[in-house]
Amino acid sequence: MRATLIHGTRDIRLEEVADPTLRFPTDAVVRVVASCVCGSDLWPYRGVQPTTEPHRIGHEFVGIVEEVGSDVRTVAPGDFVIAPFAISDGTCRHCRHGITTSCEHGGYWASADKQGVPVDGGQGEYVRAPLADGTLVATPGQPDPALVPSLLTLSDVMGTGHHAAVSAGVTAGSTVAVVGDGAVGLCAVLAARRLGAERIIAMSRHADRQAVARLFGATDIVAERGEEGVAAVKDLLGGIGADAVLECVGTKESMEQALNSTRPGGYVGYVGVPAGGPELPIQKMFSSNINVAGGVAPVRTYLPELLDDVLKGSIDPGRVFDLELPLDRVADAYAAMDERRAIKVLLRP
Amino acid sequence: MRATLIHGTRDIRLEEVADPTLRFPTDAVVRVVASCVCGSDLWPYRGVQPTTEPHRIGHEFVGIVEEVGSDVRTVAPGDFVIAPFAISDGTCRHCRHGITTSCEHGGYWASADKQGVPVDGGQGEYVRAPLADGTLVATPGQPDPALVPSLLTLSDVMGTGHHAAVSAGVTAGSTVAVVGDGAVGLCAVLAARRLGAERIIAMSRHADRQAVARLFGATDIVAERGEEGVAAVKDLLGGIGADAVLECVGTKESMEQALNSTRPGGYVGYVGVPAGGPELPIQKMFSSNINVAGGVAPVRTYLPELLDDVLKGSIDPGRVFDLELPLDRVADAYAAMDERRAIKVLLRP
Repeated sequence: MRATLIHGTRDIRLEEVADPTLRFPTDAVVRVVASCVCGSDLWPYRGVQPTTEPHRIGHEFVGIVEEVGSDVRTVAPGDFVIAPFAISDGTCRHCRHGITTSCEHGGYWASADKQGVPVDGGQGEYVRAPLADGTLVATPGQPDPALVPSLLTLSDVMGTGHHAAVSAGVTAGSTVAVVGDGAVGLCAVLAARRLGAERIIAMSRHADRQAVARLFGATDIVAERGEEGVAAVKDLLGGIGADAVLECVGTKESMEQALNSTRPGGYVGYVGVPAGGPELPIQKMFSSNINVAGGVAPVRTYLPELLDDVLKGSIDPGRVFDLELPLDRVADAYAAMDERRAIKVLLRP
Repeated sequence: MRATLIHGTRDIRLEEVADPTLRFPTDAVVRVVASCVCGSDLWPYRGVQPTTEPHRIGHEFVGIVEEVGSDVRTVAPGDFVIAPFAISDGTCRHCRHGITTSCEHGGYWASADKQGVPVDGGQGEYVRAPLADGTLVATPGQPDPALVPSLLTLSDVMGTGHHAAVSAGVTAGSTVAVVGDGAVGLCAVLAARRLGAERIIAMSRHADRQAVARLFGATDIVAERGEEGVAAVKDLLGGIGADAVLECVGTKESMEQALNSTRPGGYVGYVGVPAGGPELPIQKMFSSNINVAGGVAPVRTYLPELLDDVLKGSIDPGRVFDLELPLDRVADAYAAMDERRAIKVLLRP
């Protein structure tokens, strides 16, 4: 079968690799129906995270179960399944608290499990899915093909935007500002609307992304950044920061933007993978009671409730995909996202 | 009248100063019944915060209203009042959100108001209390003198411990660890018990403080620190960190202790004044969803509910005072706390 490997900075290749097989009784093999490129895939693509040797890449996919191991109970061949970006057993102490990304037996796609056994990436034709019962979520029956993009967002970006909103305590009537207009930021806007926020300020300088933000429920757009951006947010909110600021980028600048846009006592809900590890300024946080919550999103935990909303049509996060390419053009998909020609690219094997 | 000034490192003096008078129609003048020394007063005492010129000190007191300005409505001469450690109007945008420590018109005792007008310290015989309606809380009638120590803790340490617990989301059934066995840490134990925590691990190496922690509701004591302390906490909690860790010190070491003792998805509620400004390690927080909430405690907001509990006897935070001295021995009070001969010292003019 064919799967995507990264060889180095801006070097993405689709190559022939061995077909996956069941390796453990808890495995499933999934035929990929759609996958995509994540903003976090751009860190190694751009060389911000160095690639020392070629390896598989991709951690968002949906597909059809082909085979299951003898211990698998919750999914069966023929099921349409969504794979969250982290593998989890659903039963360990951390999973029981809902933090599936800290699963004691789990791991990540395109990586290795806790015993060092390689795990497939999602940007390929087939994937061995470890801990299938804990990890995969099957839809009730075969979904309408038109829903595939939205279902695919439940792998990562919609659940991640939702985690930002939940971590920041967004609730009915909240004032919210969203830093970052990538797919996660846009999904965070949608998540905030879904949770009942009254004002949702999307910070974006790009007309196409502003349009999606409006569609997802943004009540206001702020194009300025830095101090001007903070001032614009406060102008919209009667002179104080937002109750909840959703940080969906992961840079030092975006975190500063978020901290400075939060009112005393408010929350920054952050899900941007910290790039380069900016540390948080505790003195500023302390003096104004700016709280910081979030992290790598346990999207598996949120998947059932978000899936319900996608299936009944009350949310349509698949609109973040503005480009669709065949898998053999995966390198073009990375380039389009890197150059910000596309918000998010869907790949079909 | 006499009031306390700090002249430099370990140089505390009781001196004659001008009697306070009503300066604004929103002022009250309060005769101090009891005041005390705060752990944060030890930072300038020890020279960690330099003292460039002699100034008033002290920010926790209770007393009797002597006089009120023409605009004061909620307190009257003869009332017994509790002064929270921050001055607030109770009406500004931040006060309406409950963050009275960020009051747009407030300030701190032993400092200056937003217009630069000096504000008295609490370790004296009388105090001019600005924004008396917003700041001061009167008890219903004259309290039993035996309750004075507990009422005095509502100025700061009990409300601050409570803020740590609230910020960390302590609720019925929570597992809690408390870092710091000063008066705030001990009050945090009491606050966690009051909020229904199931397990409360007090981290303390001092028998006298351990005894108060037990009295306040600690179910377990951990004397170890650092990695051994983390391991001991996890041993008590089935191998994972606590749901909520209350950081009540403010040093780099204590914050690390707190972050490492929290389970994935849990909260550090921190109220220790950051000494020297350790920054927070965002990569560690991100990968395990360790959330950090808290800051300078808006104790005024919590005062009514905590006051109710003190008056009905369901909490007795005054037990943190293990030494009482006349005001003219204020220098001895600082020395006793600095040398950890006392947990907290109550001063009577």
